[in-house]
Amino acid sequence: MNDSGYEGRQDEIRDWKTPAIDTFANIYPDNDYEILMTIPEFTCICPKTGLPDFAVLRLTYVPNEHCIELKSFKEYTLAFRSKGIFHENVVNKVLDDLVSAIKPRKLTLQGIFNLRGGIQTTVERSYQADNS
Amino acid sequence: MNDSGYEGRQDEIRDWKTPAIDTFANIYPDNDYEILMTIPEFTCICPKTGLPDFAVLRLTYVPNEHCIELKSFKEYTLAFRSKGIFHENVVNKVLDDLVSAIKPRKLTLQGIFNLRGGIQTTVERSYQADNS
Amino acid sequence: MNDSGYEGRQDEIRDWKTPAIDTFANIYPDNDYEILMTIPEFTCICPKTGLPDFAVLRLTYVPNEHCIELKSFKEYTLAFRSKGIFHENVVNKVLDDLVSAIKPRKLTLQGIFNLRGGIQTTVERSYQADNS
Amino acid sequence: MNDSGYEGRQDEIRDWKTPAIDTFANIYPDNDYEILMTIPEFTCICPKTGLPDFAVLRLTYVPNEHCIELKSFKEYTLAFRSKGIFHENVVNKVLDDLVSAIKPRKLTLQGIFNLRGGIQTTVERSYQADNS
Amino acid sequence: MNDSGYEGRQDEIRDWKTPAIDTFANIYPDNDYEILMTIPEFTCICPKTGLPDFAVLRLTYVPNEHCIELKSFKEYTLAFRSKGIFHENVVNKVLDDLVSAIKPRKLTLQGIFNLRGGIQTTVERSYQADNS
Amino acid sequence: MNDSGYEGRQDEIRDWKTPAIDTFANIYPDNDYEILMTIPEFTCICPKTGLPDFAVLRLTYVPNEHCIELKSFKEYTLAFRSKGIFHENVVNKVLDDLVSAIKPRKLTLQGIFNLRGGIQTTVERSYQADNS
Amino acid sequence: MNDSGYEGRQDEIRDWKTPAIDTFANIYPDNDYEILMTIPEFTCICPKTGLPDFAVLRLTYVPNEHCIELKSFKEYTLAFRSKGIFHENVVNKVLDDLVSAIKPRKLTLQGIFNLRGGIQTTVERSYQADNS
Amino acid sequence: MNDSGYEGRQDEIRDWKTPAIDTFANIYPDNDYEILMTIPEFTCICPKTGLPDFAVLRLTYVPNEHCIELKSFKEYTLAFRSKGIFHENVVNKVLDDLVSAIKPRKLTLQGIFNLRGGIQTTVERSYQADNS
Amino acid sequence: MNDSGYEGRQDEIRDWKTPAIDTFANIYPDNDYEILMTIPEFTCICPKTGLPDFAVLRLTYVPNEHCIELKSFKEYTLAFRSKGIFHENVVNKVLDDLVSAIKPRKLTLQGIFNLRGGIQTTVERSYQADNS
Amino acid sequence: MNDSGYEGRQDEIRDWKTPAIDTFANIYPDNDYEILMTIPEFTCICPKTGLPDFAVLRLTYVPNEHCIELKSFKEYTLAFRSKGIFHENVVNKVLDDLVSAIKPRKLTLQGIFNLRGGIQTTVERSYQADNS
Repeated sequence: MNDSGYEGRQDEIRDWKTPAIDTFANIYPDNDYEILMTIPEFTCICPKTGLPDFAVLRLTYVPNEHCIELKSFKEYTLAFRSKGIFHENVVNKVLDDLVSAIKPRKLTLQGIFNLRGGIQTTVERSYQADNS
Repeated sequence: MNDSGYEGRQDEIRDWKTPAIDTFANIYPDNDYEILMTIPEFTCICPKTGLPDFAVLRLTYVPNEHCIELKSFKEYTLAFRSKGIFHENVVNKVLDDLVSAIKPRKLTLQGIFNLRGGIQTTVERSYQADNS
Repeated sequence: MNDSGYEGRQDEIRDWKTPAIDTFANIYPDNDYEILMTIPEFTCICPKTGLPDFAVLRLTYVPNEHCIELKSFKEYTLAFRSKGIFHENVVNKVLDDLVSAIKPRKLTLQGIFNLRGGIQTTVERSYQADNS
Repeated sequence: MNDSGYEGRQDEIRDWKTPAIDTFANIYPDNDYEILMTIPEFTCICPKTGLPDFAVLRLTYVPNEHCIELKSFKEYTLAFRSKGIFHENVVNKVLDDLVSAIKPRKLTLQGIFNLRGGIQTTVERSYQADNS
Repeated sequence: MNDSGYEGRQDEIRDWKTPAIDTFANIYPDNDYEILMTIPEFTCICPKTGLPDFAVLRLTYVPNEHCIELKSFKEYTLAFRSKGIFHENVVNKVLDDLVSAIKPRKLTLQGIFNLRGGIQTTVERSYQADNS
Repeated sequence: MNDSGYEGRQDEIRDWKTPAIDTFANIYPDNDYEILMTIPEFTCICPKTGLPDFAVLRLTYVPNEHCIELKSFKEYTLAFRSKGIFHENVVNKVLDDLVSAIKPRKLTLQGIFNLRGGIQTTVERSYQADNS
Repeated sequence: MNDSGYEGRQDEIRDWKTPAIDTFANIYPDNDYEILMTIPEFTCICPKTGLPDFAVLRLTYVPNEHCIELKSFKEYTLAFRSKGIFHENVVNKVLDDLVSAIKPRKLTLQGIFNLRGGIQTTVERSYQADNS
Repeated sequence: MNDSGYEGRQDEIRDWKTPAIDTFANIYPDNDYEILMTIPEFTCICPKTGLPDFAVLRLTYVPNEHCIELKSFKEYTLAFRSKGIFHENVVNKVLDDLVSAIKPRKLTLQGIFNLRGGIQTTVERSYQADNS
Repeated sequence: MNDSGYEGRQDEIRDWKTPAIDTFANIYPDNDYEILMTIPEFTCICPKTGLPDFAVLRLTYVPNEHCIELKSFKEYTLAFRSKGIFHENVVNKVLDDLVSAIKPRKLTLQGIFNLRGGIQTTVERSYQADNS
Repeated sequence: MNDSGYEGRQDEIRDWKTPAIDTFANIYPDNDYEILMTIPEFTCICPKTGLPDFAVLRLTYVPNEHCIELKSFKEYTLAFRSKGIFHENVVNKVLDDLVSAIKPRKLTLQGIFNLRGGIQTTVERSYQADNS
């Protein structure tokens, strides 16, 4: 029940400086509307084996003052290409960065990871602004 | 978290003069009924790259005094063929123009955009008249 | 927002004398039961272009004293083959004629029209008798 | 709105003497359980054209004291093979005969008829015993 | 409405001595959990024609003190291979025997019988223990 | 209704020492999020016949302080490769070991076993922490 | 074995003056290439019943000096909307008119007609220029 | 049989100066291998109506000394976005430009155009180098 | 027709030192048999944009004295993760390396690349030993 | 091109004494007929990692004097459950053992192995008797 050695601790992930996600002004903040993005080419590194992992990310959100700029978000995801990080932390880190960047009214992120060691893993977390 | 440069500001979109959408009188306003239109050939220009974007628009509405005239609406969408505009703003702008033109009882618009930079984006907004 | 010229006004449609729809006596009026009809070969004329339009009609109803006679209803639809009429009015006109002919307890009519100018349109309206 | 001539009146259908449907004793009447029968080979005659009609009947019921004997019910349906009868009346007549024969707790009958004159028709009626 | 002759009476089915169904101790009775078994190879004899019937049985239950031993249950079903029994009685008899053997918290049994005389029949019954 | 001989008693399963399941610290315990794992290559031994059994395990959980380390969990499942154990006990044992290892907020485990003796069996159990 | 009355004789069809099919110059006559057109909305009149028939036409050809102008060909097909003509004659007449209009190197025409009286009919004819 | 007016003559298309298609050296010219490209977002203008046309282009080739540079080919296709050109000429023009640019051993181009006036059109042409 | 600048020349690719592909002795060389490998997680870098490309590789071969060792081949493909290389060269380079490593009797390699700039590309090459 | 170390040599596999495969006399040797067996639960050990591999075996053969006895063949495959053996050798070894046991007229064996390291492998070999 004790967590294992160095690879079991990824505390630094929460403080890892990822590239900024550019935004653009939501010029229709007086309305609620929903944006769904599917990113089928996400890849990162397994911190235990050093081998690549692959996933599809699915993002849904209701913007407030800002929207995610697509090209910048694509470039943001490139920072994970050489990063050792657990599946669970990918979803939490990307969600936290997106919430910081655009302070949405609502946001859900799902990471669907390819089979590793014969096991398929999917991770999902949702965020809701307090005043929504 | 600051929005990026000129391409991040599209305030002029809300004031952009689009072609009028012709309507015809709803000769059955004494009944609620639903109209669904699917427009699979929508195209506009990405304001960041200047390259074409492609989408399917899906529109559902309950008319009040006026219906959307199909051919005129088709021609209205041609104005976007050479317009630099973000996905999110396409859906909001078209919805606002439709609501102005026909003052419907209810209306939902969905824009399903083709993959760009490996990312698929869908945007959806709904409108409901106050007295519905 | 003003409706366009002559083709935008089809007030005469509500008064257009369509062929009678024959009925037969519902000999089981003491029960509620449901009838679904699918008419895949409906065709009429576009009032703007004079070109043919094509649709599938889907009808569901609960009869009261009368049922729709199938062959007569088929012949009734032939009157639309050379009639200039908007999609929306097709559904409303046929529904009104059916309600007059059989005074059903409930009736829903859906018209699914073929692509025109790259746009697919579906129209749906429901009727419920007051005492149902 | 007046019903058409002789073919529009089928009052005699309610009094038509159909073959008896054999039953067997439900030896588990102390329990509610459900029986579903699908009869894909039903055929009768169109009273307007004299041509054969084809349908699938779907029957669901909860028995009380009696169950439908399968072979006898198959033979019962043969009586319709040369009978001129409207789609709607098929469903009502068979349902009434079944309810008389087994007095079920609940019963639903659906008739799904093949395309005629380019039109597909489905008819459905349900029965519930008073003390259920 | 009178039940037909000898083949219509199967009262002896309720008293028929079927083989015992072996069980094993549920070593996790402190938890509710669900077991689903699908038996695609059930066969018995039609009491009217003497010909074989085939069915899929689907069983779902929440065990209390005992679980059904798979191999023994398989052997139990062999007793029906030469037994003249109606579809409805198969489901009721097997359910009663299972409830006697394992006294479950909940149990549902469904029998899906192959087409006979052009008719498909499905029978379903559920059991719930009083103190569940 | 009496449980059968030695093979019917697997009391020792609850005390069987399985390999430890490594965990890693959940560095986002301040959020509820869901993890789904599908393990399609589970195999164990039937205690009655000594022959191999095969199953797909499906696990869903909301972590508290710890997450399951994928590679270690894969290795944990290898201990069942030569273990005689009933289907029902597989699901209960693995669930108990997972709950001990990570003390999750919620966890559901489903075992979908391959056909044996012509019978397919699925077992499912859920756990919820008291303070969730 | 004698042909039936007037409706069995359609000799006038070969002399029927159909609208001209516009063409445009094939500016690549130095190459063989293939053009496939699918016309899903063809409709004409059955000469026996006076009721509408519906078909899909499929046309494949290798042009020589001229290509079929799409819009004009669409309008050409409208002449059949009120014409009494057998399925077989539709395919032969349209093929003859196309060959006259564009003198192609090769041309095949297929007419796939909707079910009538429970019978589906498909008619196909091919043409090859002498010097091809 | 005479070609229609100005819109029927597109002789200038063969001389139209389209943007250069960049190539890169095939560094494996000592082998035959096949490249398939699918371009689902092709759009041009109908020379009769001035309205947009849409198509999927499918290209297959065996390179000789040069390969098509993907991004440059994408940009090349943008020149058709505002060009009035018939479906048949699109396929011939693009094929000629590709053959000039890369002098392939073999090349086939197919243009699959969206429904216009209820008619779907596909055009296909193949090229083979003399010394292949 | 001139190849473009530096990114258009990838001559060094033929001399690029890729990691060795381990093999194991084919202990059944006295028989022809076929091995099919699907590698769904291939990724490299576009030499024009510096952005990642993604592909599925499909390999089929008949071994002679040696077989491809799976784990080593997986590691070999990792060398492409940070390599700027055109789609066409990926397929040729990997094929050449595989042929050097195992000198197969026959081998076919297909690279199915993800959409870039709205274009999907597939490249395929086959090899056959002289004495096969 | 040199085969790797100990794990690369599996010469002993050809001499490995596997359990006998029982046969029964083909009492219809005067006819050619085909037998297809699918074994979805094959498992062995990877000689490089010591971890389990999983496969579906598909066997098709035309018997001569002997047929494969099903239960004995199932038990034969159990010998691979703890054997370190490459995918390619599994197919060759099983095929050789089957050919020795039954001397068939024709036999094809396919091994479809589960994804390992992100790579799916399928191996297929065919045998034909000389005098067939």
